Amino acid sequence: MSNCNSCPSKNKCSTKDTGCNIINNPNNKIKNIIGVMSGKGGVGKSTVTSLLAKKLNSMGYTVGILDADITGPSIPRLMGVKDAKAFSNGKGIVPICNPQNIKVMSINLMVASESEPIVWKGPIVSNAVKQFYTDVLWGELDYLLIDMPPGTGDVALTVMQNIPINGIVMVSIPQDLVSMIVSKAVKMANMLNIDVLGVVENMSYIQCPDCDKKIKLFDGDETEKFLSDMNLSLLGELPMTKEIVNITHHGVTEISDELDSTLESIVNKIK
Amino acid sequence: MSNCNSCPSKNKCSTKDTGCNIINNPNNKIKNIIGVMSGKGGVGKSTVTSLLAKKLNSMGYTVGILDADITGPSIPRLMGVKDAKAFSNGKGIVPICNPQNIKVMSINLMVASESEPIVWKGPIVSNAVKQFYTDVLWGELDYLLIDMPPGTGDVALTVMQNIPINGIVMVSIPQDLVSMIVSKAVKMANMLNIDVLGVVENMSYIQCPDCDKKIKLFDGDETEKFLSDMNLSLLGELPMTKEIVNITHHGVTEISDELDSTLESIVNKIK
Repeated sequence: MSNCNSCPSKNKCSTKDTGCNIINNPNNKIKNIIGVMSGKGGVGKSTVTSLLAKKLNSMGYTVGILDADITGPSIPRLMGVKDAKAFSNGKGIVPICNPQNIKVMSINLMVASESEPIVWKGPIVSNAVKQFYTDVLWGELDYLLIDMPPGTGDVALTVMQNIPINGIVMVSIPQDLVSMIVSKAVKMANMLNIDVLGVVENMSYIQCPDCDKKIKLFDGDETEKFLSDMNLSLLGELPMTKEIVNITHHGVTEISDELDSTLESIVNKIK
Repeated sequence: MSNCNSCPSKNKCSTKDTGCNIINNPNNKIKNIIGVMSGKGGVGKSTVTSLLAKKLNSMGYTVGILDADITGPSIPRLMGVKDAKAFSNGKGIVPICNPQNIKVMSINLMVASESEPIVWKGPIVSNAVKQFYTDVLWGELDYLLIDMPPGTGDVALTVMQNIPINGIVMVSIPQDLVSMIVSKAVKMANMLNIDVLGVVENMSYIQCPDCDKKIKLFDGDETEKFLSDMNLSLLGELPMTKEIVNITHHGVTEISDELDSTLESIVNKIK
């Protein structure tokens, strides 16, 4: 039971002590763990993770981001810490704090050059993700957000089985092909009894900077059907604006009032 | 040496018979195998694979597509065969032919429902990809295109080590963060002595359907620097037009003259 004392799922967990795969670090006190997932790549999981972290932080919560995308990590650039290097202090791995004091751990904080490829087999990748939970000195956090990689393979399974996540935010875009693949991720979470908190629809539209016209790029938007088939609610919609797209280039710095109000509405539904 | 007789890399291979991990199917005669990779998800690998297949097919070549994205397969929808089911005839797995006679193999042609998740550990996913090469009755093909999943993990390693690919087309978008992750994939290919044929830049710009203005969404386009750092050539640029984006919805059917001429130029550089 000692392992349960530092578990964010203490008193909310249906697993008896036997059969629990989770190793909690007694040095950490994490209140809530939220996974950001999609199943599909390139829909904006890392961008949504970074924006939610920034918003929670500005509301006064202490926040960490665990970048579980080992072979395609985006978080260090998005959080403005791409040149930092994490180190171990003997007790564990010390995460990097970004200028807003958001704690970050990513494989790209541990390699000599950020473009160095991680050519590892599945079990080794999964072990790295487990260590990012178990061996990192997160300290006290109100929220730990986990940026998950595409797919429903090894890493997704490891996060769902070895980290006591309280819920998942699914990120999708209004494209039928993507909804199909996101459905796979939702069904996987259901199989593993993980709560899906709702869906953030990214790239809902593009606004032409010249004529202000809102461009709906995708035909056959069946978002409502997808949400009702999967029994999920829409947490919010993010347009494909220069502000959001270029977060990947400039990092999350200032946020416009419009985006801030969308984020506030999303955060209020999941916190 | 019998294994070499049906190998697309016969006479072009530096590996001696010892140490070769590749199992060729003597029933198949495949002349060229090209991987389509990125490292990053959601940049258009599957779309580029489908467009190249369609173009090669219209030029009179026999073409197959091996969908190596086991946990996020897009090819059946893009090739208009999403409801087909592949079967085994006792000698091997029979691929699905689309209306243009392009042969397709994907995990989504083998599951009861296309939204059923594949929750498999890495080695099982890799075995499925190996089988798609070894056990599928591709027959005679001028080109087998392999649509690779995001990342540099298990599947990418399996494709590079267990399938005799002749070269890789890298797909990128003009965003620094993406170039960084694509660099990882290029370096992985270099490590494994696989020829990178060049880069297709997708989402180069968006054209406003209202005012025709070309919108460059991404700041900090360092494509030229990326190409020169990686010593790669640009095979072609694809804009983010409704025609291309909605291939995922309608499948690859008719192709406009403008897109056709871009594809012709790309194909002429890689064939």
